[in-house]
Parts: sequence; structure tokens; C-alpha cells
Amino acid sequence: MKNESITSRDTDFAKWYTDVVRAAKLADYTSVKGCIAIEPNGYAIWERIQSILDKKFKEMGHVNVQMPMLIPEHLFNQEKELIEGFAPELVWATEVGDRKLEDRYAIRSTSETVFCDYYKKHLTSYRDLPKLYNQWCNVFRYEKETRPFLRSREFLWQEGHTVHATAEEAEWETKRMMDVYMWFNHEILAIPSISGKKTEKEKFAGAEYTITCEDLMYNGVCLQDGTSHYFGQKFSKAYDVKFTNKDNKDEYAYYTTWGKTTRMIAAIIMVHADDYGLVLPPRIAPKQVVIIPIGKDNTEVNNLCCEFNKKLNDNNVVSYIDNSEKNPGFKFAEAEVNGIPIRIEIGARDLVNGTVTVARRDTREKINIKKDELTVEYITNLLETIQKDMYNKALERQNKLTFEAHNLTDMEKILNTQPGFIHAMWCGDESCELKIKEIKGCKSRCIVEDGKKIDDKCVCCGKEAKYHVVWGIQY
Amino acid sequence: MKNESITSRDTDFAKWYTDVVRAAKLADYTSVKGCIAIEPNGYAIWERIQSILDKKFKEMGHVNVQMPMLIPEHLFNQEKELIEGFAPELVWATEVGDRKLEDRYAIRSTSETVFCDYYKKHLTSYRDLPKLYNQWCNVFRYEKETRPFLRSREFLWQEGHTVHATAEEAEWETKRMMDVYMWFNHEILAIPSISGKKTEKEKFAGAEYTITCEDLMYNGVCLQDGTSHYFGQKFSKAYDVKFTNKDNKDEYAYYTTWGKTTRMIAAIIMVHADDYGLVLPPRIAPKQVVIIPIGKDNTEVNNLCCEFNKKLNDNNVVSYIDNSEKNPGFKFAEAEVNGIPIRIEIGARDLVNGTVTVARRDTREKINIKKDELTVEYITNLLETIQKDMYNKALERQNKLTFEAHNLTDMEKILNTQPGFIHAMWCGDESCELKIKEIKGCKSRCIVEDGKKIDDKCVCCGKEAKYHVVWGIQY
Repeated sequence: MKNESITSRDTDFAKWYTDVVRAAKLADYTSVKGCIAIEPNGYAIWERIQSILDKKFKEMGHVNVQMPMLIPEHLFNQEKELIEGFAPELVWATEVGDRKLEDRYAIRSTSETVFCDYYKKHLTSYRDLPKLYNQWCNVFRYEKETRPFLRSREFLWQEGHTVHATAEEAEWETKRMMDVYMWFNHEILAIPSISGKKTEKEKFAGAEYTITCEDLMYNGVCLQDGTSHYFGQKFSKAYDVKFTNKDNKDEYAYYTTWGKTTRMIAAIIMVHADDYGLVLPPRIAPKQVVIIPIGKDNTEVNNLCCEFNKKLNDNNVVSYIDNSEKNPGFKFAEAEVNGIPIRIEIGARDLVNGTVTVARRDTREKINIKKDELTVEYITNLLETIQKDMYNKALERQNKLTFEAHNLTDMEKILNTQPGFIHAMWCGDESCELKIKEIKGCKSRCIVEDGKKIDDKCVCCGKEAKYHVVWGIQY
Repeated sequence: MKNESITSRDTDFAKWYTDVVRAAKLADYTSVKGCIAIEPNGYAIWERIQSILDKKFKEMGHVNVQMPMLIPEHLFNQEKELIEGFAPELVWATEVGDRKLEDRYAIRSTSETVFCDYYKKHLTSYRDLPKLYNQWCNVFRYEKETRPFLRSREFLWQEGHTVHATAEEAEWETKRMMDVYMWFNHEILAIPSISGKKTEKEKFAGAEYTITCEDLMYNGVCLQDGTSHYFGQKFSKAYDVKFTNKDNKDEYAYYTTWGKTTRMIAAIIMVHADDYGLVLPPRIAPKQVVIIPIGKDNTEVNNLCCEFNKKLNDNNVVSYIDNSEKNPGFKFAEAEVNGIPIRIEIGARDLVNGTVTVARRDTREKINIKKDELTVEYITNLLETIQKDMYNKALERQNKLTFEAHNLTDMEKILNTQPGFIHAMWCGDESCELKIKEIKGCKSRCIVEDGKKIDDKCVCCGKEAKYHVVWGIQY
């Protein structure tokens, strides 16, 4: 049953996206311009993301802290590159009650400044290092055009800020955190992201380099979905973050930051959802199974629902019985639009024949099985199958939308027909990046690490190519 | 071994408090005036608080959401009493980049306005009710005098915002959430809090009434540590939050809010900590047991440490081995200042005699037991004993610091000698509250529900008494 409130994905992708956000009750617009209310269904996904990532961070030795959200102007100004990068988007608090504040305070758009200021005070010896701090919080960036989850003025994220005694260790941290992000996207979100370094032009303001995690949406548009930055000693010099090294000499600390945001929820939607609503990969779904009894007040039906629900919960499958007053058709549609991976329909009539129905959300396939076949193992296996199938489906589409360009004509043709990940060689000059950007705003996504040489020459200027780069149109 | 960095509690309580905060590495001051950095040890306590309370809220049917932190001025102005209560403490964002914003935005100090604005849009029928929403977030209040955790300009909290179809149900919600707070303080934090309604003067701006949870600190000063507000239809009228009731008529929704904050960490310190540092009740301690091996590289010692640590962790006791480079004396002191409930010392020499040492943080008692007596059951029992003993110790002190006053002379005498919870009858007139406040700023804490009549006359004016009230000096 097609959900009437959802525009078809192939007719108007942008409208389809916001329709799904609303129909699945993930978020809504508010009276605060550019800011959303994250509703229970949306926040529950964020809680799943938090719990899985946070556990991983802690296993790796990270600890959580909480730094102030207001940043005095003088602190921000210490790092010029950062303030230049963020200046136009910074919102300033200037008044309290009915009077002026002495200092202007920026509402945090990122927290490098306050973390460095903290570390400056708290590092003495190499024995204090590394410090592996992370915080879960809200940040604010005054974006002009906003879209729920995708680009909201206020959003939620985690920001890791670590300091190390050596460059090697800090670079290793930068890399291993990107590995965590890639693991999370591949294994948990079923999104076949790619990763690599950003070009100089696209890296984070003030970083030595940035490694990025890039997803490809259903419509061939790219989404930056997590970054890990290596700062070397740049910030620690600007903020005077020093320690005494093993040779008893003062040395500036080596600094990294890495973050992933509520934007992940946008990625889940734009990779997996369909015209019937949200489709959640089982490993991230707050509710994995819904059991719907059909035929009112049938003892056998109710008992089976309760017993099986309990069995699933006892085995760490998050399931629930929908025994609300609505009719079964309405319940099916609701489970579907909310993206619940498996729906079990247990009906009085079917039980006479000894069967029950299991419906997969991803394929919308209805499977009739014998009552005795409905076991915890059957469901856990099916959840794993769905997880894998969703990844493979996304990967297959991504492969179809991955192209090679050998000259600007190729590039234009691809971007005008069907955008995607476009592999092309690049000389390394920013002028070529700018020229390519003229084609529908296409940007470098990331440099392919150890990428095979697909040409000798730059796709743009024809000079000697230095890098194998993935290009694309971005959100 | 007395921690040299901690002032004695009986010499200078205020200095002792901040010394403990710093020595236990719970939080530190920052370059952002009045705002603290919550450090790993402090944030870990907050994570324990969050996980226990959040689980309880969810079991009761609450769901989490996230609303914007910036509130447009016009929205705030809709509820006059609220803005009047908060106006002097509100910080306003007025600029973006280098230009003025069209609207002024208040940084949330509480979120009644945005929740009501949301509910206005989302309620239609009584079938939508109740909505039991909660959010975990940061809030900002421009306090003049600040103290880590106790009163910080920015702090973390949970704020529940629920709407109901009937007054009865909303009043029940107001009450049951205070019951949860009381359960949490008594059972988890080992704090024998009292609760009751606030007087009209002390209630939350705009509420019909406020129920409060009040703790008594070691020095006899009171601390408000959680409130639950019943708003009736006041806010829903101001914000036009309507629904169609069972009789198919428009009705304003009945509204409640309730919150508990990082101030709880201040309460834990000021009720339980001592001159040696923090003392954590086992149920809230992020780390419950530390195992310290003594005598380097002794295989028997190391094996026993590892085996027993594993056994504890397998049985849901959070323990760890401190096998850092420091000497044992330093490790003992560190475990002590950090308030870890149980320290197990396993030494080569003691093992020759077949004994190990178990040290309780609360009593600082060292118990020598036979190696075979060191079982998981022994430790879990001891943790429960410590939890109960800490509660009883706090209760005993609270009882000693609970007084009765029958006239203003009594009241003055108590407040000048040793403040505490002062029970006294009150006529209900604000003028008497104000007169009592002249004595060292003493305020009504709460009205004792079904409190026995300890006098016929008001403690202040001598007129007929209406309420049995607890009074005290507050933080």
C-alpha cells in the first residue's frame, strides 16, 4: 500500500526526502528558523548510533567530557584559519537580560579552541599523554539553506579531541578513527562509504590534512559523513599546548579531532528508504521486529504473540506487539513507513492452517511459514540476511553510479546525465579544481589512497597527473 | 594518608568543596567565565546518573526528543510569568558573522516555550495524549556567583515535558516523577532527601505548583535537587495547546515539567565526601572496585589480580587493575581521592600468609581476609553494605541537623548555631516568609505533606498556622 503522503523518489527526490522525514515522524520544523525538533522516532535512531559508537570509543580508550558551549571571542581569534573558515556561520551572544555583555561569545560551531585552551592548562609531561577525549553535544552553524538532518543550523554530534606526544601516534589516531567510522557505516548503517584524504582546498580550516568518509545517495549526490583531522602542531602552537618530552625538553603536542553527526540519519534515509517510507538496517533499528495480532481477542493468537515476543526480547532482539486499537491494515502501513525491518502477522485464520506471515521491510516480501518454523533463530538469521542484503543492494547501486572520466567532456556528460562517484586523475592544481567546480558545482570528494593510475594526465588541464581523485556533486 | 591538596571540611567547607572537585578531577574552571569543563571522572558520574534515570523514564513510557536551544524572543514573550522569572539570567544571541540578526534569540534556560510551541502543532485528539517527552541537554543561566556543579552558568540536565487530557492524570504525573527523583536520591545516591510542595513564593515561575526534592549538606545548608511542576492549563492557554476531548470539544491540555541536573554531583560531594576526597556510593560509582598488585612482577600476584578482576567483571561489578608505573602508596591515595568504594590490595608478602587486604572507602577500614574468602559474593555483599551504611550515616547526620522552631527566637538561635532542616508552622502569608528570610537568608524549603501540627500558631506572626513547613539556608 503506497503511502499517499510520500512523493515518489524518482519524481522529486528532495520532496520525497522531506516527506519520508515527516511520514516516519523523525523530525519536524519549528518556530526557530533552520532548526528542527528531533522527534521520538528520529531521536531513537540517534540513541542507537550513540550507544554503538560510544561503546567502540571507550573500548579504544577514549573518555567523555563536556566543555562550555560559549566561546569568548578572544579565544577564537587565536587561530586565524579556524575563525576565517567559520566566521560567516558563527552566531554571537552579546547581551544578558537587558544589558550588553563585556565579551562577545560565539555559540560553538566546533570546539577546537576550548579543548586546546583546556589542554594548555593540563599538560605537563609526556606521561600525561595521550589524552583521548570525546564529547557528545550540540553545535550551531548559521546555514542559509537547511534540510532536516542533512543541514540544520543546530545539530548533534560527537567530537573527539586527542593530544599525543608524537606525530606518528597522532597520525595513527587520525587514521584509526576514520577506520571506526568506515566500520560503522559499512557494518552498522549498511552504507558502502568510501574514504580518503581531502584536497588542500576541501580540508578542514587549520588542519594539516583531513580524512573524509563519503557516501553516495540514491540520486547520485555525494554526502560527507564523518571526518578525521590531523593538525600536527599547528593548533598547539597557536594555543600554547606544550609538554615536557622524554628528553626533558618542551615540545608542542600533536593534535587530532574527528566527528560524526546527526547527518547520518539523512544518509540512512537517502541510501535505504523508498516510496513506502523509511527502511532501517536491523543493526541500527531501535525496534527490529513488530508483531501484529489479527482477529480480535483470539486467545491462541494473543498467547502466541506474547510468548514469541518474550522469546525474542530474551534473546536481545528488540521486538514489540502492536496491540493498539487501529485496524491491521493501518498497523502494517505504520510499521512500513517507520522502517521496522521485520513484521510478523499472526492471524486466527492462518493459525487454523498452522501458518504465520513474516514480512521483510527491505524487499516488501511476504513469507508464509509454518507456525513451528517461527523461531528466534529464524528471525535473527533473517535480520542478518536483511542487513547484508541492504548493504549489497546499496553497493550494487553505488557501483552502477561509479564512473571514470578521462577528460572534461566525459565529466560534463556524466554530470549532465547521471551524477555519481566520478574517478579521474588530477594534477594537484587548485585552478583545475575550480574549473571542474564550474560543471554543476562538482567538487573533489577524496583522494584515492593507493589508487590505480587510470590516466597519465590531469582530467582538466592535461598536465601530468599526481592524484587519483573521486569527484562528485555534494549536499 | 591525608591528601595535602584538600582543606579540612570543618575548617573551610567552601574551600574543601572546590578542593575535592579538583583533587578528584571532576571538573575545572575554564576561560569561559562561570562555565566549567566537566572532566572524565566527573562526566563518568553523569553518565551513570543518565543511564539509570533514562532507563527508569523509559520503563515508565517516556521517550526522548531534542528541541532547539535557541528560542526566538517573541516565543518567550508569550508567557509573561516565565520571562519575568528568567529575564535577568537570559543570554541573547543577536549577531551572526558581522551582522545583526533580525530576531533576538535566547539561549535556552529552560524549554517550556519550545515544547509548548511543538505540542500546539502536534496535538489534535485526546487519542494523541498523553505525550511523555523528555530531553537531555545543556542549559544556560547567567548566574552571578558560580561554583562547579553547584551553580554553573551552563549545566546539563534532563527536562521532562508532558501533556495530558485531564488534570488528574497530569497531577499524577507530577507526583510520580517526584517519586522517581526521591527513589533515585535514596536508593542510588544514598541521600535521604525530603520532598513536598514549594510555597507560592518559591514555586517555578508560571507553575500552578512545584514539588521539590531537598537535600541537606554536611554543613547543614539545604540544596534543591530536582523539581516537578504542575502547570494545569496555564501554559497551554498562553501557547494555544489544544486537543479535541472525548466529548468532541476543544480543551486546553494539562502540562507538567520536571528536571534534575548535574547539581546532583555537588550533592554527592557535600553529603558523602570527606577530608580524604570523594566518596562514591557503590550504585553510582563509575568504577566500584580497584585491584592494586603490590610487589613487582610476581606471577602469583598478577594471576590472582587478573583472575579475580575477570570474575568481578563477569558478574557485573565494575572493577579494574591499577597496574600503572606508580608506587602502591600513590595508587592507594589516588583510589581514595577518587572515591572508589572498594580497594583490594594483593601483595606477594601477604599471599605467603594466604591473606589479602580489602579497604572500604566510606569508613577507611582495612580488612584482612583469607585469600579464599575473596569471592565475588564477598565483594557484592560489601558493596551493598557500603551503600546502606552511607545512606544511614547521611540520615543519622540529617536527623541530628533537623530541628523544631516554635518562635523567631528559636529560629534565630538555630540558624546562628548550626543550620539544618528547621520544622516550623506558618500562617501562609508571604510577609512572614520575608521576615524569616531576614535571618541569614533562611527560606521555606517545602511544605510537609500530611505533616503533624507542631504548633497552633505561625512561628513568625503568631496568627493561626496553616502549614507545617521545613525551612533552611540554601545554596
